[in-house]
Amino acid sequence: MGVVLAFDGTGEKPKATLDQLVKLTTADMNLVNEFILEKAQSHVELIPEIAGHLINSGGKRIRPMLTVAAARMCGYQGVQHLKLAMSVEFMHTATLLHDDVVDESDLRRGKQAARVIWGNQASVLVGDYLLGQAFKMMVETGSLDCLRILSDAACTIAEGEVLQLSISQDTTTTEDSYLKVVGAKTAALFQAAAKVGAVIANRPRNEQEALEAYGRNLGIAFQLIDDALDYSGKQADLGKAVGDDFRERKITLPVVLAFRRGSKEERNFWARVMEKGDQTDDDLIYATKLMDRHSALADTVDRARHYGAMACDALAIFPESEHKDALLEAVGFCISRAH
Amino acid sequence: MGVVLAFDGTGEKPKATLDQLVKLTTADMNLVNEFILEKAQSHVELIPEIAGHLINSGGKRIRPMLTVAAARMCGYQGVQHLKLAMSVEFMHTATLLHDDVVDESDLRRGKQAARVIWGNQASVLVGDYLLGQAFKMMVETGSLDCLRILSDAACTIAEGEVLQLSISQDTTTTEDSYLKVVGAKTAALFQAAAKVGAVIANRPRNEQEALEAYGRNLGIAFQLIDDALDYSGKQADLGKAVGDDFRERKITLPVVLAFRRGSKEERNFWARVMEKGDQTDDDLIYATKLMDRHSALADTVDRARHYGAMACDALAIFPESEHKDALLEAVGFCISRAH
Repeated sequence: MGVVLAFDGTGEKPKATLDQLVKLTTADMNLVNEFILEKAQSHVELIPEIAGHLINSGGKRIRPMLTVAAARMCGYQGVQHLKLAMSVEFMHTATLLHDDVVDESDLRRGKQAARVIWGNQASVLVGDYLLGQAFKMMVETGSLDCLRILSDAACTIAEGEVLQLSISQDTTTTEDSYLKVVGAKTAALFQAAAKVGAVIANRPRNEQEALEAYGRNLGIAFQLIDDALDYSGKQADLGKAVGDDFRERKITLPVVLAFRRGSKEERNFWARVMEKGDQTDDDLIYATKLMDRHSALADTVDRARHYGAMACDALAIFPESEHKDALLEAVGFCISRAH
Repeated sequence: MGVVLAFDGTGEKPKATLDQLVKLTTADMNLVNEFILEKAQSHVELIPEIAGHLINSGGKRIRPMLTVAAARMCGYQGVQHLKLAMSVEFMHTATLLHDDVVDESDLRRGKQAARVIWGNQASVLVGDYLLGQAFKMMVETGSLDCLRILSDAACTIAEGEVLQLSISQDTTTTEDSYLKVVGAKTAALFQAAAKVGAVIANRPRNEQEALEAYGRNLGIAFQLIDDALDYSGKQADLGKAVGDDFRERKITLPVVLAFRRGSKEERNFWARVMEKGDQTDDDLIYATKLMDRHSALADTVDRARHYGAMACDALAIFPESEHKDALLEAVGFCISRAH
């Protein structure tokens, strides 16, 4: 199935990586990571156990890296951005814990999901705990603006998840509706993560908005690539099982496109597997074949590239710097995961 | 089974009610209620639907009333306390939604639990949304001190719930351990709700601490009475089924006392029904009989009365006022629910 995504005509530029971003943020991120481990502690044993399971499971920490890199690109010299970065990662971790319960997922980042090991109950409650810690850390920065941005994001993320739930299994979902879900459930946190970097550095509104737009568009691109990978990636790269979205009957962009472009018979197929949930393993293979026929995966990546380009253009107002270069390359990295 | 709690020798004083508190806070609470309905809105339809189900289900709103009455007792003349009261109620509502998922409860305030109607998934996510809205409202008050107090409470509540989960079904739980759970899962929000009233009114530390102690002790008393009622109340008063704690194998103070005071044979009974979960309806009747034999319910109410007395004494530093009287009577009301 790898062939599906071998559509990139250029193949000339060296593949974008996160290396530059990782390198520039290493010192800050080491402190953020120490912070994360410290704040996941509790005298209630189950909390560090479950939080640690996710925290040590090898996520790339791309969201807190955005906060740290954005703040540094804006010339910030203090330490409050570390607390913001930690808050962003805890908000993300809490979402993952709750998502796994909602999606009934068995795998997360290639390991058993916390809910499989400790149960749904503990996953819900430890998620709540991490969310509480995230807010405590934000309060410690003393920045009401950052608190406003991140609490807005918390609402928007939950709203996006509920919206996703209410359109789930509906094959007639439009691309617009789907983009609303992505904008809320994924892009809102990227957007807030990047924006608070400028806010904590006391930069003017146009720079805050530039980073906000960068984060939002990067977040959308990131999610669309994730959606494509779910049908074409390798489990080892993905950290979850290929076809999870299919089995969970999630309507993602590849499905939206394949359904809209499909024949009546093909739409019946999508209705059977997605709406009725009547699926076999062969159906996943056939679904991928239909996506191939209608160029649904390639076009999903193409759409992602469009949002990636907007993310890059948003940064144009910032002077050249190594942090800016690293943030631009992070966009390339997100897109190139599909190759 | 009502006989179990007919132990109160005095029977002379008129029964304490919430009437005075309700009357004094009516104007404020009408605004809080409008606010609550407004902030439970969302373009995502499922959110107001589920939130409204709980919000309109006839809770007494005792927590936000504490905030409002505390602020007024402290002479506060502004409107920020309304936002704090709303935040407190949303934090509570979010906890209820998540609790029902964790406890697999079918009834809440005498109605079907949201999770039964809309599923666990939506309950988790709408709880997250309400928590996000709670933080947004707190940020709008501009009070970092209130934000600190309430985000601390959010962590503590989640910690308490996890702790409760980890001691669940353990009949050897000590009274001390159980009080830790109660102090966190229930009293932390009462405590924060009362304290922020003094904080928003800019009152000195001793008054903040007095209201904090009032709230904490009232919260413990409130929970202990709830625990007793679960074995002795009427379903109509309780808003949940009698014996829920027993069926959910929750270790509460009546069980702790009956187990500790029981014979070897009786302890075997508790181990079978609570630890192994091997229960019949007759077992609930026998459990209540054992509690009666060892005065476990009466003594639970007695313990509650002790915390209630501490709550009242905590308010001694405030000059006489109708708000103070109402807060004192609220303690009496919480205790008298057991009669």
